[in-house]
Amino acid sequence: MERDPQDLGDDHHEERFQLCEVELAQLQLTQKEPEEGEVLSGLSQRRLLSAVAMEEFEFPASIHLQKMPLFPKWHLPLKLMAVLMAVAFVYTFLRDVLQPYVSNGKNDFYKIPILVLNKVLPWTSITLLALVYLPGILAALLQLHRGTKYSRFPVWLENWMSVRKQLGLLAFLLACLHAIYSLSYPMRRSYRYKLLNWAYQQVQHKKESAWVEDDVWRMEIYISLGILGLGILALLAISSLPSVSDTLNWREFQCVQRTLGYTALLLCTAHALVYGWKKWVELKQYVWYTPPSFILACFLPAMVLLVKAVLVMPCLDKRLDRIRHGWERPSRKGRSDKDSL
Amino acid sequence: MERDPQDLGDDHHEERFQLCEVELAQLQLTQKEPEEGEVLSGLSQRRLLSAVAMEEFEFPASIHLQKMPLFPKWHLPLKLMAVLMAVAFVYTFLRDVLQPYVSNGKNDFYKIPILVLNKVLPWTSITLLALVYLPGILAALLQLHRGTKYSRFPVWLENWMSVRKQLGLLAFLLACLHAIYSLSYPMRRSYRYKLLNWAYQQVQHKKESAWVEDDVWRMEIYISLGILGLGILALLAISSLPSVSDTLNWREFQCVQRTLGYTALLLCTAHALVYGWKKWVELKQYVWYTPPSFILACFLPAMVLLVKAVLVMPCLDKRLDRIRHGWERPSRKGRSDKDSL
Amino acid sequence: MERDPQDLGDDHHEERFQLCEVELAQLQLTQKEPEEGEVLSGLSQRRLLSAVAMEEFEFPASIHLQKMPLFPKWHLPLKLMAVLMAVAFVYTFLRDVLQPYVSNGKNDFYKIPILVLNKVLPWTSITLLALVYLPGILAALLQLHRGTKYSRFPVWLENWMSVRKQLGLLAFLLACLHAIYSLSYPMRRSYRYKLLNWAYQQVQHKKESAWVEDDVWRMEIYISLGILGLGILALLAISSLPSVSDTLNWREFQCVQRTLGYTALLLCTAHALVYGWKKWVELKQYVWYTPPSFILACFLPAMVLLVKAVLVMPCLDKRLDRIRHGWERPSRKGRSDKDSL
Repeated sequence: MERDPQDLGDDHHEERFQLCEVELAQLQLTQKEPEEGEVLSGLSQRRLLSAVAMEEFEFPASIHLQKMPLFPKWHLPLKLMAVLMAVAFVYTFLRDVLQPYVSNGKNDFYKIPILVLNKVLPWTSITLLALVYLPGILAALLQLHRGTKYSRFPVWLENWMSVRKQLGLLAFLLACLHAIYSLSYPMRRSYRYKLLNWAYQQVQHKKESAWVEDDVWRMEIYISLGILGLGILALLAISSLPSVSDTLNWREFQCVQRTLGYTALLLCTAHALVYGWKKWVELKQYVWYTPPSFILACFLPAMVLLVKAVLVMPCLDKRLDRIRHGWERPSRKGRSDKDSL
Repeated sequence: MERDPQDLGDDHHEERFQLCEVELAQLQLTQKEPEEGEVLSGLSQRRLLSAVAMEEFEFPASIHLQKMPLFPKWHLPLKLMAVLMAVAFVYTFLRDVLQPYVSNGKNDFYKIPILVLNKVLPWTSITLLALVYLPGILAALLQLHRGTKYSRFPVWLENWMSVRKQLGLLAFLLACLHAIYSLSYPMRRSYRYKLLNWAYQQVQHKKESAWVEDDVWRMEIYISLGILGLGILALLAISSLPSVSDTLNWREFQCVQRTLGYTALLLCTAHALVYGWKKWVELKQYVWYTPPSFILACFLPAMVLLVKAVLVMPCLDKRLDRIRHGWERPSRKGRSDKDSL
Repeated sequence: MERDPQDLGDDHHEERFQLCEVELAQLQLTQKEPEEGEVLSGLSQRRLLSAVAMEEFEFPASIHLQKMPLFPKWHLPLKLMAVLMAVAFVYTFLRDVLQPYVSNGKNDFYKIPILVLNKVLPWTSITLLALVYLPGILAALLQLHRGTKYSRFPVWLENWMSVRKQLGLLAFLLACLHAIYSLSYPMRRSYRYKLLNWAYQQVQHKKESAWVEDDVWRMEIYISLGILGLGILALLAISSLPSVSDTLNWREFQCVQRTLGYTALLLCTAHALVYGWKKWVELKQYVWYTPPSFILACFLPAMVLLVKAVLVMPCLDKRLDRIRHGWERPSRKGRSDKDSL
């Protein structure tokens, strides 16, 4: 036990805290050097704490906090999220803020706190969501290619697969923030002032109606798709709470995570595509020869959905099912028999 | 164990996966033919999976997924929700979209993705919420009528009672979606264009102030009631999470589910009634001789609240309390004594 | 067991419900007179209920509901919240509604259901959030002053510390309601009418642009800070769900509750300060010689953050760390040795 030199000799305190020390000794016995994974669970720690009535800021220093793992499963997803957000931020900042300033001298820096951030959030969110479903597809392709399920996946694929839950939860968090940011648009002073200026111009130009049927339809549909997508993502997130997922049996868990998951990805991709509408072909959207961000954002999820659509076609689906039942491609079997000689 | 014919003879694989097979054998021992309800819990399944490091898409085919129940408690509530939504959609579509088109040739089809859907959502939501509290009231009335608690309820009532939690959660989900849809109104292009056109007309008519005191009050009150209702429903939903409800004692659970539940129903009904305001008596609201949807939506919850208000009156409440303490009406006792002969 | 006199003699019923009674007897054995804390957990109660297939409104009266504690940990936080909300409501009502009516005869009573309530909610929320972190700071100051950790804290401080989780959850609930209320602003009729009138005036005054750069920036920043603060509070709230916090080890729990908690407090305080912007120095904000509510609301959280900033300075942080490792100030030790004689 680590102790300061000044700490020796205060035996009367030790006596008072004897119960505490006994329990801590037990704790240390079970803890020692926390070998990988062998760390005292949070639950029993907190039970101990409530047993000896300690406040958390009094947590005994002899329990080496530094040796406890700090969200080991979240490191990779968080780093990935940070990188994606940084790239998306720079790209959006260049296109939406810097380009108007450089080309037309237009000061649009006020867009950074909300409008730029609210392009970064959905872009990162949908990318993370696609990355949840990409490894499953890669694994299926690998199994089809190998013709057997009795081969280990590469390490990187296994690592990736083991953090899918974390990726999905981050995607949901960013999607929620995106929703709140979007809902706050008409609250902002900048929106109010723009609206007043548009009204002024409409009166000046004696334009009786501002209605643009095309634009109205576009926005009604993509908002509706976005809300439905968020609702389904919320169900997925709730079902991944430990206490909820414990009450589900395997088939229910599969149904939620797979069926609802792909539905959410489909709705979110459709949401992004309808948001784009005809901007695909409008040349003015390609400022500085860069495509609008929704095209880049849609690319990965659209690929995932496309490959998935191919994989659920009867011929491939049946073969994959047989492989997962233990069937092996004859050529493959011969090869692996030779391997075992 | 079901196996493909090709699967025989690959013993070296069997060896490699021996541990896995042993565990699966244990699994099958406990599972065999899943007799009703006797299905391996999701928890132990997933523990098994993590023990043998299988990915879920590799889940052994010998575990018959098809025989596992798929959300058995949710079938009835989901079907009910689907029917209610379909009816509400048709009704709203006819009144809000088709009638203006047929009568005035007005093209309001853009209303379908958001405005029509956002009448369907609250209507279904409040109906489901009323259906959570209706069976309790029917049961109380039945007990009062029979004068005893020692009689089984009809099967349909017991079934209904057993899915109240599911009905409540669906009501909450729809209420959340309704809130997000409502908050998205001023974001939409259609709202912006309408606003600009109103501004144009106000200028043309030289109307200094657009303020309508009555309308302002109506909207401030019903939004406030709606948000408070949603807040209380959220507390109810959180308290029904397994890990949260496990920490509540019986009295706390009762207090949340009953007191908060009726408060939420009251707030939501008031929200709908204030939304209606004076439309009750405005003849133009009765297009094609149909009443506005909020009247239909309010009917059931208002009935439930009314009967509940009667039931908590001292005379009835005391009698019900005595019945639930085991007291029986004398005439009833005589009859049941005869029955037992 | 309490029973009505009429209840005697219905033995045939007793037989039918024998199983039930046996289980209840067991229940009563474990329950008897519920001595403090020794109350049957909600879990086992509900298991019992499902075992004997009783509906909750049939809950046996022999289990004395009145003797069960009703959210004992929530009494103090809820009372505190009620008092804070009442004070904030009166203050805001006087300044925002009564003052314009008395001074200028302006009827702003329509502000009560949303605008006044939505000043009360964030004010109470940020105060509760500051009260979560204040006791930890007081305890640290006390430890520094006493120079030892081997002294009990005063009872009020221990009680306060034991309800920090509840205070935090209430702060989050109010913050969520505040967010929804704020997002509903542009939906309201009052906002629409004001907007139309502003547009009318802009046209009358032939003002080409309504844009106020300063105001735009202020609002973009404070909305963005508020949303981020709410997002972090949501993470904190989720991590305090029993099933989630059980999966965290001590260091993770610390990291979430402390690092994220102070980040949230910082963001929310910044949100309030940016909302204030230059109103600090505008004399017209001090109606009836009272400061604007955001100044009062910011005071406590700003103090907490300031003292915390001082406490994490190396010299104090090191000393506090040594005290928590068991070190005692020499003078203190002499004194306590005398005490023990």
